[in-house]
Amino acid sequence: MDTITSTPEYRTILLESGETSCRDFCTGLPDATLADELEPLSAAEIWRVLGYLDLRRRALIFGRLDLERQVELASSIGSEPLVELITAMQADERADLYKILPESIQDSVMPSLAKAEREDIRKLSSYEEGTAGAIMTSDYVAFRPDLTVAEGLAKIRREWSGKETIYYTYVVDEKRHLLGFVSLRNLILAKPSSAMESIMQTDVMFGRVSDDQEKIAQIIALHNLIALPIINGGDTLVGIVTHDNALDVVTEEATEDIMRMASMEAEEQVDSPFYKSVVFRAPWLSVNLLTAIFASFVVSIFQNTLSHYIVLAAMMPIIAGMGGNAGTQALAITVRGIALGDVSLATGRGLIIKEVAAGCVNGILLGLLMGVIAYLWMGNPWLGLIMFLSMAANLMIAGLFGSVIPLTLKALKIDPALGSSIFITTATDVGGFLIFLSLATLMLNRLA
Amino acid sequence: MDTITSTPEYRTILLESGETSCRDFCTGLPDATLADELEPLSAAEIWRVLGYLDLRRRALIFGRLDLERQVELASSIGSEPLVELITAMQADERADLYKILPESIQDSVMPSLAKAEREDIRKLSSYEEGTAGAIMTSDYVAFRPDLTVAEGLAKIRREWSGKETIYYTYVVDEKRHLLGFVSLRNLILAKPSSAMESIMQTDVMFGRVSDDQEKIAQIIALHNLIALPIINGGDTLVGIVTHDNALDVVTEEATEDIMRMASMEAEEQVDSPFYKSVVFRAPWLSVNLLTAIFASFVVSIFQNTLSHYIVLAAMMPIIAGMGGNAGTQALAITVRGIALGDVSLATGRGLIIKEVAAGCVNGILLGLLMGVIAYLWMGNPWLGLIMFLSMAANLMIAGLFGSVIPLTLKALKIDPALGSSIFITTATDVGGFLIFLSLATLMLNRLA
Repeated sequence: MDTITSTPEYRTILLESGETSCRDFCTGLPDATLADELEPLSAAEIWRVLGYLDLRRRALIFGRLDLERQVELASSIGSEPLVELITAMQADERADLYKILPESIQDSVMPSLAKAEREDIRKLSSYEEGTAGAIMTSDYVAFRPDLTVAEGLAKIRREWSGKETIYYTYVVDEKRHLLGFVSLRNLILAKPSSAMESIMQTDVMFGRVSDDQEKIAQIIALHNLIALPIINGGDTLVGIVTHDNALDVVTEEATEDIMRMASMEAEEQVDSPFYKSVVFRAPWLSVNLLTAIFASFVVSIFQNTLSHYIVLAAMMPIIAGMGGNAGTQALAITVRGIALGDVSLATGRGLIIKEVAAGCVNGILLGLLMGVIAYLWMGNPWLGLIMFLSMAANLMIAGLFGSVIPLTLKALKIDPALGSSIFITTATDVGGFLIFLSLATLMLNRLA
Repeated sequence: MDTITSTPEYRTILLESGETSCRDFCTGLPDATLADELEPLSAAEIWRVLGYLDLRRRALIFGRLDLERQVELASSIGSEPLVELITAMQADERADLYKILPESIQDSVMPSLAKAEREDIRKLSSYEEGTAGAIMTSDYVAFRPDLTVAEGLAKIRREWSGKETIYYTYVVDEKRHLLGFVSLRNLILAKPSSAMESIMQTDVMFGRVSDDQEKIAQIIALHNLIALPIINGGDTLVGIVTHDNALDVVTEEATEDIMRMASMEAEEQVDSPFYKSVVFRAPWLSVNLLTAIFASFVVSIFQNTLSHYIVLAAMMPIIAGMGGNAGTQALAITVRGIALGDVSLATGRGLIIKEVAAGCVNGILLGLLMGVIAYLWMGNPWLGLIMFLSMAANLMIAGLFGSVIPLTLKALKIDPALGSSIFITTATDVGGFLIFLSLATLMLNRLA
């Protein structure tokens, strides 16, 4: 099977075939696919299917369901099977679930958990969203430096089933300070009698619990890592972030950028309920309304000019549209450059100059073209001149604000993409109309 | 070191310290970091530093440089060291380089390569950009079904250095048909005397050489894989795509979406030369100019109406701006939904209905608000009514086109994001002005 797409038959097999054939069917499905198939079913139906699986797989599949779905399911069974399930879950997924469980369920579950799991949940759920701490898992393998390779491999054979990866392992001292890194490749290549400290790589890359998840994903991507160890303020190894977390982060951050550039809430999804789509967008549209009224106010100042030469009103959409388009271009390259780590505040100045210059060149080229078109269309060379000057100026404004806005947001430690499409169109609308209508007012006796 | 940032000192160490200390320094740096540090140096300087490294690492670092840089470097040394280097490179990086080498270098290198490498290059470089074939590597480990685990591990110990990953291995028959999958975890957990066919997982996920790279990345992400095997038309295993390729694809595709939505060329980067930024954007700005002239033409039809009540000209930016903003919102959620596989052509209809409805609700809410503002500002209740009706209508148009445009592009097998910001603002400008100015014309005796 190269891809598995949902079909009505899957539903039938899951719900209407007998226990044995349903179990066989589930065994043959990859975790992610089975979780996808379960998602649309009712809580009772999901529990029935999960009941056919052994505890380890049940916990895996459960952990792959939407978090809101997990809460719903957790609320619909007793405390005893829930404790069993939570204990078997992966450490990071368990902490994510625990964080959003209703307090009553937290209180009924927590005392029944083993001490190790309780402490693990407390630690993992204490980190702020978007940090390395919030996405790391404590399900990794760590060795003492004097352990031999043979003992290490034996430990892996014993413990693998509870670990998120065994391909990268770490060497720590008695206080869990990170001493080195050993890959499973190193382990199988090394002499069985060697000590970990003699084969470990001491120059280990690591992240800190407070690091931005995007930075962690960039390190994993840049160095093609399977996992990155995470240390806390006391330099103690507290978790790892794995390659699949990094992939999720990259996808999530790209989605956030696209949504925020379009002045949307990052959490809105295609399948968000209808009222959420309305409620998420209304505030941004209101901000846009305010800024549009501002642009409208600028135009209203020039009512006298406009009433003497109404052709100007017809030209306004061209000035605004071209400025908006050029501004969006400058914005997109800057926002993406910041996200990919290709632009920093230090190098931002060069980018601003380049964007203004690019706006200038394209403004002159397209302004000349539009000037000629306006002249031929309306028969007035002065209108052509005004169009040329305004477009050149507005495309420079577009380049300036398109690069300055995200860099400024970044400097203020705000997401550089946040609502930036609104700010840029405000800048180019207001700036463009101001220049275009001022020039027209100055040359009004040539126009009308 | 958690992150390594470029400093002037690095340059000094690389170029001005002696051979021994430069070599020591390079040994301590991760591949990606060293490659980043070399990138700004001249070809001669890069060759000097690379000369200090052993062949394997030299090939690794070389393969991590920008492709254009690799070509420049390849053109600056003799054929013999180049053949040695190309032979030592990773299969996928080698094929990528070969594809863009000048013909004269291809011809001087090809005959000196061993037959295996020659065929490998021919195969890997024959696949179309953006497909699984173009990003896969042939550096994987494959076993025969009757090989024992002990023999397999011995093979891995012999061959690991030339392989991109040894954590996932594959079992093939004598015609290289894919029979099963064995992870290194399975290998170290299994009895040394077991045959591969008895421990392999037969239900293997795989991709095809012609599959879109985005689809491959989605499978790797969904199932948290370290690698995905790729088969050709004859069901023969021809390569693997690894987790780090998937990460690169996801990053690349997100960048493409952001750039294309902003009507840019996907290949433009922050550090593209200035002339390229100008040349890449000018065609899109020209298309935008055409569509803006169309909007301007629509306005010009209503010159008579506008000249009778010039306040309408001041209101136009509000109608256009709100439509553009709402349209961009609908566009962003649709484009991203398609990229993430959450919307298909089959489910697109529901999304269109939802977007039109969301536009309708927000249009009525914000239209009411703007209607009251326009009434209070200009003292004319009829203007308020027209603003209300036009905004409600234009936000519905925004929802309609914001979702229909990318879905239509997708149906036409064109990138759904391509230039979509231009199309959507055209739709909302033209539609908005047409409705607003038509209503104003109908009610002109109430306005002026």
